[in-house]
Amino acid sequence: MLVDGKICKTIWCKNRKVFIIDQTTLPFNFKTICLNTLENFCDAIFNMKVRGAPLIGVTAAFGMANSMLSDQSDKNIKYSYEKLLSTRPTAVNLRWALTIMRSELLKTKKEMRIKKAFKIAEKISKNDENACERIGEYGCEIIEKIYNKKKKIVNILTHCNAGWLAAVDWGTALAPIFKAKRKKIPIHVWVDETRPRNQGALLTAWELEKEKIPYTIIVDSAGGHLMKKKAVDICIVGSDRTALNGDVCNKIGTYLKALAAYDNSIPFYVALPTSTIDKSLKKGIGKIKIEERSGKELSLVNTFDGQKIKESEIYFKNANVYNPAFDVTPSTYISGLITEVGICEANETEITKKLKTKYHD
Amino acid sequence: MLVDGKICKTIWCKNRKVFIIDQTTLPFNFKTICLNTLENFCDAIFNMKVRGAPLIGVTAAFGMANSMLSDQSDKNIKYSYEKLLSTRPTAVNLRWALTIMRSELLKTKKEMRIKKAFKIAEKISKNDENACERIGEYGCEIIEKIYNKKKKIVNILTHCNAGWLAAVDWGTALAPIFKAKRKKIPIHVWVDETRPRNQGALLTAWELEKEKIPYTIIVDSAGGHLMKKKAVDICIVGSDRTALNGDVCNKIGTYLKALAAYDNSIPFYVALPTSTIDKSLKKGIGKIKIEERSGKELSLVNTFDGQKIKESEIYFKNANVYNPAFDVTPSTYISGLITEVGICEANETEITKKLKTKYHD
Repeated sequence: MLVDGKICKTIWCKNRKVFIIDQTTLPFNFKTICLNTLENFCDAIFNMKVRGAPLIGVTAAFGMANSMLSDQSDKNIKYSYEKLLSTRPTAVNLRWALTIMRSELLKTKKEMRIKKAFKIAEKISKNDENACERIGEYGCEIIEKIYNKKKKIVNILTHCNAGWLAAVDWGTALAPIFKAKRKKIPIHVWVDETRPRNQGALLTAWELEKEKIPYTIIVDSAGGHLMKKKAVDICIVGSDRTALNGDVCNKIGTYLKALAAYDNSIPFYVALPTSTIDKSLKKGIGKIKIEERSGKELSLVNTFDGQKIKESEIYFKNANVYNPAFDVTPSTYISGLITEVGICEANETEITKKLKTKYHD
Repeated sequence: MLVDGKICKTIWCKNRKVFIIDQTTLPFNFKTICLNTLENFCDAIFNMKVRGAPLIGVTAAFGMANSMLSDQSDKNIKYSYEKLLSTRPTAVNLRWALTIMRSELLKTKKEMRIKKAFKIAEKISKNDENACERIGEYGCEIIEKIYNKKKKIVNILTHCNAGWLAAVDWGTALAPIFKAKRKKIPIHVWVDETRPRNQGALLTAWELEKEKIPYTIIVDSAGGHLMKKKAVDICIVGSDRTALNGDVCNKIGTYLKALAAYDNSIPFYVALPTSTIDKSLKKGIGKIKIEERSGKELSLVNTFDGQKIKESEIYFKNANVYNPAFDVTPSTYISGLITEVGICEANETEITKKLKTKYHD
């Protein structure tokens, strides 16, 4: 997507050097960094310099490739796999990408492993980009249908950031929005602030601002009120892990929005590459271990005085805090899944059918 | 309630001088201020130096009394009424208290108006205190029943601040919690941060900390997840305005918590003095004008470096923001109302019955 007139991706590789946009300083500073070591890659994922299910997977794949540069042994393949996997327990793409890398590398001759590793990582990255663009095309059809019926601006609510910054390009939940903009469908996006890290207010709003798409930031609590007063036509969110029955594990708060959409008969869609579907998981509720992150993510915020970003305390000292990062939305409340192989209902029969027409390979 | 060993109220009057705790600097600085002029009172309410439905009403009553000191004319009674009423459109207690003051003062001889005004304001204040304590006693019975059945710590979720800082003393939603603590019932409170002004994290957590009641702050999005995993036994919230059919207008986000409680069969109670019941309002949904406050409440936060409170930017410049301050929860999702005259179901028949046994007079 465009950043001040320049085409940008979240991660790219040049001469076996991997670069990323450091998303922790966005939207205040646009900074790119080079990841050189396995520790760099782990830190980038754990500390959310890169985030979003698809991008985490791609970054981990490049992390494995980078790790091959210094040591091509089986032991290092397994070590790097474990190290990278431990950074974010909820994201299924991480395991998915790492498993592809590990199995492909283990069956490759040692001297060919560096070349092979970068080749697969590049392929995973390119596949993600294409998948996200397809999600955009399928999702845009839903927005267009609403527009054709309503003949007025379509109001879309989204939670967290599932834009191009969460993938290599295009994004998942925002891809249909970027496509709708290109088709000149009049849209407006309600952007959930998304506490504690404010990815909505910081990243989603920034992406939409740069693409000149009308948007408004709201607190996470406001969506229900807006839906009740019919100011929302459709909700589209992303997914970090999807169970076979269609239960969706996504950023904390997604479940509440799904409940409100259901209560007000507003379509609630989840946009996801099929790589976020966890085939080992029959159902999501009660079965997914939810990542619990530091309470400091609530009590410390990044403030910006126009020049410097500073971490500042907003709670009183030693306040007790709990910070679960995700929740699981039961498939009952989901109108449909928008994938790179088309839209389907959130149930096992439909999902299994879609998985058979898998676009990635 | 206690603040560092001293008994404290949110508002008090001594020799016709009115003092309040300035809640905008809490929990970082505990500061009391004297309100001298009508403008002082209006500013204190509008800028939320005092907030919470009951306290707004009491403050407005004292504002009318203070205004009588300089001018006892009919004209000034009406002028002060209008000025104070315009500060917060949603709070029904404001209108309720001001209407009592206006009608009582208009039928009082001019030379007696100062004395009368302070007398009624004091009475409204004392009534509020007593009503809140009664709410505490009734609500505590519900908590005790859960404890007797569960025989383990009772987990209570609350949204915003409906503690003693929102009233003269005791509070509404927190009053049952303060009473349960005194009855030695083991409890733990999940405190919604309550964006944008973080009254939960700043005020509710501070009240509980000072009373040594176990609590944990969570983001507003986390409640659904906690309810799904059965980590919440009961929700208790306050109300800014209650319709005759039991619909409750309260801090933005209340509706989402009610939906989650309903979806997980968790009791959802609203604690309110009957003075928040708007008898002119048959139903709440679609009928209550929701106060829209400045977007700056989202983009600016108070940070504290251990010495100074500073207002800091957390969004990028000129980000578009919308800030509705309340939402309406349909009575369908409310298990019951805890009032100073007992607990009742959230429907017109029950509410009307309770209003007849009105405790205030």
